[in-house]
Amino acid sequence: MSSYSMLTDLYQLTMLSGYFQSGKHRQKAAFDLYFRRVPVQGGFCVAAGLEPALEYLTGLRFDADDIAYLASLELFQADFLEWLADFRFQGDVWAVPEGELVFPNEPMLKVEGTLAEAQIVESTLLNLLNFQTLIATRAARLKIAARGAPILEFGLRRAQGPDGAMSASRAAYIGGCDATSNTLAGQRFDIPVKGTHAHSWVMSFSSELEAFRAYAKAYPDSCILLVDTYDTLEIGVPNAITVGRELRRQGHELKGIRLDSGDLALLSKKARQLLDEAGFPEVAIVASNDLDEQLIDSLLQQGARIDIWGVGTNLVTSRGEPALGGVYKLAAVVEDDQWVPRIKLSGNPVKTTIPARKQVWRAFDGRGRMLGDVLSLLDEEPRGEVKSYDPLYAGQARSLSPDRWEPMLKPAIRSGTRVVEPVSLHSSRELARRNLESLAPESRRRLNPERYWVGLAGSLHQLRNQLIDAGR
Amino acid sequence: MSSYSMLTDLYQLTMLSGYFQSGKHRQKAAFDLYFRRVPVQGGFCVAAGLEPALEYLTGLRFDADDIAYLASLELFQADFLEWLADFRFQGDVWAVPEGELVFPNEPMLKVEGTLAEAQIVESTLLNLLNFQTLIATRAARLKIAARGAPILEFGLRRAQGPDGAMSASRAAYIGGCDATSNTLAGQRFDIPVKGTHAHSWVMSFSSELEAFRAYAKAYPDSCILLVDTYDTLEIGVPNAITVGRELRRQGHELKGIRLDSGDLALLSKKARQLLDEAGFPEVAIVASNDLDEQLIDSLLQQGARIDIWGVGTNLVTSRGEPALGGVYKLAAVVEDDQWVPRIKLSGNPVKTTIPARKQVWRAFDGRGRMLGDVLSLLDEEPRGEVKSYDPLYAGQARSLSPDRWEPMLKPAIRSGTRVVEPVSLHSSRELARRNLESLAPESRRRLNPERYWVGLAGSLHQLRNQLIDAGR
Repeated sequence: MSSYSMLTDLYQLTMLSGYFQSGKHRQKAAFDLYFRRVPVQGGFCVAAGLEPALEYLTGLRFDADDIAYLASLELFQADFLEWLADFRFQGDVWAVPEGELVFPNEPMLKVEGTLAEAQIVESTLLNLLNFQTLIATRAARLKIAARGAPILEFGLRRAQGPDGAMSASRAAYIGGCDATSNTLAGQRFDIPVKGTHAHSWVMSFSSELEAFRAYAKAYPDSCILLVDTYDTLEIGVPNAITVGRELRRQGHELKGIRLDSGDLALLSKKARQLLDEAGFPEVAIVASNDLDEQLIDSLLQQGARIDIWGVGTNLVTSRGEPALGGVYKLAAVVEDDQWVPRIKLSGNPVKTTIPARKQVWRAFDGRGRMLGDVLSLLDEEPRGEVKSYDPLYAGQARSLSPDRWEPMLKPAIRSGTRVVEPVSLHSSRELARRNLESLAPESRRRLNPERYWVGLAGSLHQLRNQLIDAGR
Repeated sequence: MSSYSMLTDLYQLTMLSGYFQSGKHRQKAAFDLYFRRVPVQGGFCVAAGLEPALEYLTGLRFDADDIAYLASLELFQADFLEWLADFRFQGDVWAVPEGELVFPNEPMLKVEGTLAEAQIVESTLLNLLNFQTLIATRAARLKIAARGAPILEFGLRRAQGPDGAMSASRAAYIGGCDATSNTLAGQRFDIPVKGTHAHSWVMSFSSELEAFRAYAKAYPDSCILLVDTYDTLEIGVPNAITVGRELRRQGHELKGIRLDSGDLALLSKKARQLLDEAGFPEVAIVASNDLDEQLIDSLLQQGARIDIWGVGTNLVTSRGEPALGGVYKLAAVVEDDQWVPRIKLSGNPVKTTIPARKQVWRAFDGRGRMLGDVLSLLDEEPRGEVKSYDPLYAGQARSLSPDRWEPMLKPAIRSGTRVVEPVSLHSSRELARRNLESLAPESRRRLNPERYWVGLAGSLHQLRNQLIDAGR
């Protein structure tokens, strides 16, 4: 898809036209994009998807075909469509960079501009940021479960459509995966690509040994053999050892074997023993087959001898929780040249929004460890010790006195022009890795993590309470 | 993405190169694409994704950039890359049309060609067919849960990437959804698009009534008002009734209200009562908010008065089971000018493949009802009563004596050229609807459906047993 301009919910366009008809489309507004809950009961999310979002915003336009299609719906007046044909995004965007950690209720992106331009981008921004943040987060969790061992992302065949695969490969790399099997993702995003052979390779030869020999001949220096087509321990590993010896006589070394079925704990231990006894302690054992965080953790606890993990479906579709529930909410509008905060009330406490234009501040101690986040009004800057209030639970407050406060929302687009340089995926991945190290281990752990503190600074807390009182 | 040629697992290319080096790339092979289990314990799947798969196959080629990227990986020899630059898919494809019902273990697509061309397409075909079949199936189940009421697909913002949204909108329509909110899907696929306004519309005005009036003015003949921004029954519905009366005085009619939070059973009943009492029995009640099959079923059992259902996240990400486990397996190879069946054995019974080139035959009674499916060797045609054998469970056999046997795998591509006309989504959707009517209600139901019979004809059953015996 070359442009995502039309990749929007129709109601964005019907609202836009409504704003246009009532003359409100030029009114200024501020929106926050955030999520309310970390998926799969985790303790953190890894921000991802910003780069495609910025490309979308700066390329947003409706071409003649788009306008003709919209006209055919018989919902829109000609003057609106004429205006839409010239429409460009001229607003401001601040965002948390890819690879930073993000937490519930704090904006990871905010948009300020006319009601028209800030509203029309909602669905597309959510689509791009929700999914990539979800997958980067799941990848980071996998990497933690694997105690840092290499993880290969193999999800293409069961991803949710072609771009489900592409976005997933990109985000999984940011979150900590080491390589992908998806060749187009490798080409497009400069992610390392990996792959060996399938069962069909073995089946297409008249014997497994013949198949292994042919593969070793084609890839003498990067040969990883899939050993479970017929019987892993009786046939597969012995054949791999035979081919390993043949390679060695020719001055090459077998790189690894791959297990793709059966009891991976048992098989990896026995395969390791067979390989070691045959003089191949350096041959790596790669495992795949419906792996996920929990299985990897459990296999390691059982003493599995697996060096490299191939993870597909469960990572790229985020099994267990296939969507991040990011939302995009109005925070303020300009009336009579003044920013006026807006709140949406709800009987459901998590759905009551946090009003006003805001900044997110992260507190770091002297060793660079993350202590907590504080949301403030935009024109406030925390200094020294700051008391903040839980946005969800009454009576919860905390004082933070960090060495350093860092603003997390950085300028990305100003008046429609990009002001942030593109960041390489490698840098974003490295940033995520460093951030996870500076998060307390209690908040990083996979099960029952300690909640990372996100509070509202006093003035924001007070403003919100006033608006809640006024609305009830 | 203009071409999906590079959207493949790297191991397809390393295998291809290996076949090329060993001269096997010209050997003929036959592969089957099928799944082993219906998702979420359902009784059927609705085939979808064929049209993009055929576009991919007939457009498959590697351009100069692709070749340069592959060369940069330092995995491939120059003669292979030269050959790859001229590579086209010249094989044969048979497939079950979109909108037909498909069941475990029966091929929904088969490919015959050189080992090179039949192997290289695996990942991309699986990506395209797995996801769309999954979503078409979930849409059909939703439609059953809603007792046939209109369903609007609203999934864009939480779909798995841009194409996760596009593929989902397309497949959801085939499966029975009535419209989408995704404007690009409407434009691209000619699916009806629907949409009204969000909470932010209401919040951007100084009162809900003002917001409703502005919306009604902009859309006097297609006005659906979201009534839950502040308080559904106390404020929202009364304001909608006020605006409904104003519209009526101007010669228009309010079309509906939308509920997006709270107890949808209770709210819809009370809103219906308020609307009816005010003289608006024709105003439809639309409901949304994290709906799924089970919730819709439960709301209807509680007597909810909901006319139209908006379903998003849970449909387009297939929550509960976000991937269909389709596989692509070698069934036969040509050796000495003879097709030789191939089998993959496994200690896991469901993973033992069904060998040989095959056809899938569907048995219909005189009233067009589906009685069961039989897999036969390709050159066999069932006539009259046929006994068939369960591919998974020992000792299970059934005799079918239908009025009519219909071959389900139809020629789609012959020697690389498309031989089947493109089918409109509307026809595929209508086909799915008719098929679901001809499936026994016991197999159609959402919970604990009766397993639809899929058996192996005698000769195929015997061949498979022989290969299993020989392989052990």
